[in-house]
Amino acid sequence: MFVFDDGFSYRMPAHFGGVPGSGLQNLQYDDVTGINISYLTDGDMLSRYVPDAFELLDPVITVGYQKCCGIQWMGGGYYSLIALMAPARHIASGTEGAFVLVIWENKTAPILGGREETGMPKIFADIPDHHVLGGHVTANASHEGRVFLELELDLGEALTEPELSAMTSGSRVNQLGWRYIPNIGRPGAALSHATLYPVDATYLSGSRARGKVAWTKADPLFNPLQAAIINALADLPVLEYRECTFAKMVTNLRGDLAQEL
Amino acid sequence: MFVFDDGFSYRMPAHFGGVPGSGLQNLQYDDVTGINISYLTDGDMLSRYVPDAFELLDPVITVGYQKCCGIQWMGGGYYSLIALMAPARHIASGTEGAFVLVIWENKTAPILGGREETGMPKIFADIPDHHVLGGHVTANASHEGRVFLELELDLGEALTEPELSAMTSGSRVNQLGWRYIPNIGRPGAALSHATLYPVDATYLSGSRARGKVAWTKADPLFNPLQAAIINALADLPVLEYRECTFAKMVTNLRGDLAQEL
Amino acid sequence: MFVFDDGFSYRMPAHFGGVPGSGLQNLQYDDVTGINISYLTDGDMLSRYVPDAFELLDPVITVGYQKCCGIQWMGGGYYSLIALMAPARHIASGTEGAFVLVIWENKTAPILGGREETGMPKIFADIPDHHVLGGHVTANASHEGRVFLELELDLGEALTEPELSAMTSGSRVNQLGWRYIPNIGRPGAALSHATLYPVDATYLSGSRARGKVAWTKADPLFNPLQAAIINALADLPVLEYRECTFAKMVTNLRGDLAQEL
Amino acid sequence: MFVFDDGFSYRMPAHFGGVPGSGLQNLQYDDVTGINISYLTDGDMLSRYVPDAFELLDPVITVGYQKCCGIQWMGGGYYSLIALMAPARHIASGTEGAFVLVIWENKTAPILGGREETGMPKIFADIPDHHVLGGHVTANASHEGRVFLELELDLGEALTEPELSAMTSGSRVNQLGWRYIPNIGRPGAALSHATLYPVDATYLSGSRARGKVAWTKADPLFNPLQAAIINALADLPVLEYRECTFAKMVTNLRGDLAQEL
Repeated sequence: MFVFDDGFSYRMPAHFGGVPGSGLQNLQYDDVTGINISYLTDGDMLSRYVPDAFELLDPVITVGYQKCCGIQWMGGGYYSLIALMAPARHIASGTEGAFVLVIWENKTAPILGGREETGMPKIFADIPDHHVLGGHVTANASHEGRVFLELELDLGEALTEPELSAMTSGSRVNQLGWRYIPNIGRPGAALSHATLYPVDATYLSGSRARGKVAWTKADPLFNPLQAAIINALADLPVLEYRECTFAKMVTNLRGDLAQEL
Repeated sequence: MFVFDDGFSYRMPAHFGGVPGSGLQNLQYDDVTGINISYLTDGDMLSRYVPDAFELLDPVITVGYQKCCGIQWMGGGYYSLIALMAPARHIASGTEGAFVLVIWENKTAPILGGREETGMPKIFADIPDHHVLGGHVTANASHEGRVFLELELDLGEALTEPELSAMTSGSRVNQLGWRYIPNIGRPGAALSHATLYPVDATYLSGSRARGKVAWTKADPLFNPLQAAIINALADLPVLEYRECTFAKMVTNLRGDLAQEL
Repeated sequence: MFVFDDGFSYRMPAHFGGVPGSGLQNLQYDDVTGINISYLTDGDMLSRYVPDAFELLDPVITVGYQKCCGIQWMGGGYYSLIALMAPARHIASGTEGAFVLVIWENKTAPILGGREETGMPKIFADIPDHHVLGGHVTANASHEGRVFLELELDLGEALTEPELSAMTSGSRVNQLGWRYIPNIGRPGAALSHATLYPVDATYLSGSRARGKVAWTKADPLFNPLQAAIINALADLPVLEYRECTFAKMVTNLRGDLAQEL
Repeated sequence: MFVFDDGFSYRMPAHFGGVPGSGLQNLQYDDVTGINISYLTDGDMLSRYVPDAFELLDPVITVGYQKCCGIQWMGGGYYSLIALMAPARHIASGTEGAFVLVIWENKTAPILGGREETGMPKIFADIPDHHVLGGHVTANASHEGRVFLELELDLGEALTEPELSAMTSGSRVNQLGWRYIPNIGRPGAALSHATLYPVDATYLSGSRARGKVAWTKADPLFNPLQAAIINALADLPVLEYRECTFAKMVTNLRGDLAQEL
């Protein structure tokens, strides 16, 4: 029979074997193309979606699209994501970072690991590759043919080497999440706690850009599991766009620094 | 700020709101087409993949393909699955049922709920709809274009109304799983326990059939996360085929009976 | 070297071999689920999209969704389509039938055969399986995540055996198309002519229904090849809904009757 | 009613309007990643698949994978292809180029244009993005989960600027195809003639590489339309690998030079 080893870490199905240690390694993504669009929103409205273990530092949402390629843990494979984050501080530990409101991804495997191992709130969406038509870059996320989020960038001047170096030096994003696993058969949580999952990036090239986002609300009939999330985010006003960029980078998900907060 | 309510149940991202109570409802799937192929295998080999909290009752694997449509919790939507189970008893509780070795599904949403809420070991695969060419029915599961499991049925005589009624009466499958959520940053489990998730079926029509399965081993380079699972199962010998069926049914996933064992 | 045989018919790539005769056989689809929604529109506007070799008989558009399974020429496989047709007469031959405005399909193989061999104006769209939630049936077609056509049915009373028999007896649809293959390097056509491709159906079960369609116009930036088609059809007013049905059937594409008109 | 204009060119459905002139423009693909693997095969066997209007110049097959992005005619979109070509001369015109045995593509729109407008023998396959794991690059093509062609490259030394310039200068590939459109209802061709469709490339970066291909034969039951093509190509022996490369490039499909031969 299969016997669990307390010195190992497992993933479901656990009974085909685990790995010694914590199971969390640094994950290098060799070839990432990213769109970042930031905007000021209403702080009161936004704070409704940030657990009270955190403090919202600035009512600014950053929407980040990434086409991730050369992913070593996927045998050199790839997936795409669109993440929404806002700057926050974990009150008890004082850790500052980016509270992750939601991450849509177009493959299941990274969704499972992110949720179960580091509390990243990943859910599925269809995310076609970004389009590039001259200096116009677009991307979108949809559910069964119904788009709910569209990103558009008009590229401006290229980032200089010193700018890229500075971005690399300051690239650390302390992703703040919340891992929640429910009880079975009764309300409440079997696990419920804040998490930290830092990520670093080395910027290879990029451009400043003017960006915008467009939300299309979801009908709960057609997207019963995500409509509440999409519609809450769609209702947050875009008061002013902030910095937008288009960049090529190498990213490093710092499993060695991931922790429960 | 968002405040958790202990009388609620949540799913990640939890901060957009939960539901009162346990969150587990009965899930009715109105239109399910199923292929079942059972085979005798080597008991010693199979038992390596069954946690020692269970006892293997019979070294028989049932491979079940289902195209599930009319799924109420998905707004009438659909997904497909291929599950492998073996009869087992949970020793501490004495519960008998079908230990779930693995379930491949082709949509992410049911994978998340199954894993986190009931410990069902669901992972992703591409599962095209079954083909029907006269009395020949086929299905398969693949990863990025590389098939690893193929099912074939040759349909025989139709099941009679009394047979269908008897199958409906005895349809309860006590799915036995294992929910495992790892610690972050150190080995061992934050959650690790057996689960029970019964499912009932009402059989509408069907046929006896002769079936077979064919495994194609996976190269860890091309399927790094699933190769160990696929190859372990592919190595289990098919000593003798047992009962095989093709059926249309309504299924009812008994969230009301789901529990930690 | 490869030599063409005038007694054979070929498909590109032709040089791997053809088949004796015309290559057109009757194609039986064993398991088809169909939604039909008809509506009165503006005749002047609609006639702009019907070649003048035809005469429009009635300004009524029928939108037909079909999930086609058990397709013998695809090894028992499946695809889905949404077709738009209007009753018309081919003036020169006097043939009456349904002029095919456009057919969206979600697999390439039937698109190629339909276009090149019978002049059916098939183009690609993502078409998820229809959803069924109680008596509410929905389907849609989209391009890269942006829906352009949504169908909804509310099911009414079931069709009786005599009604189904009558529908089967009158099922023949004389699909009228136009095969057009351009010259290379200069304007005008290498081939341009009307076509006839009849299809029969045997109705197995079904319901009357109330239906509606909803168009979402396409932005040429995001759907450059289809925006003109979608937007032309979206501009045709829905003046009054006519008969709508939901049905299970066996269809027979009458390759033996296909011809150039 | 809709009236055709002889000074225009159309695509099916033609009746929504065409474009003045030939309809063929130069198509620039701004961001193409390519794998090329060449191998010597048996000339007698290969020549069976080259129409006798051509002469095979060298029994060498080049398998070319391309992930094409920044495609202007697709609004900046993308698709992937795997093409097989062999050097040949069109006897009547004396045109030398690369006879296109088959092209698999993973989107329908370019397949339609290629077949109908320039006689390129394009058919559909699932083609995931290439994987890159350090210096190991892989790609594959499959049909409904069953892989039939796998490519592997081990990257060697980078191409120098002079080498890239030389490759750009000599990049012209005179693609030689055969446009075949059958009669309806009787054997033989409505259109059947050789075609020329040149393509140029500007090489941006790249590497020499060691490559190999692996074919998996197709079962006609599971891939009835393509099994004969796949199995014919799979039977051609790999006698010796020739030049293999990995490169980033801009390509220009020379619609202005496309012609019937």
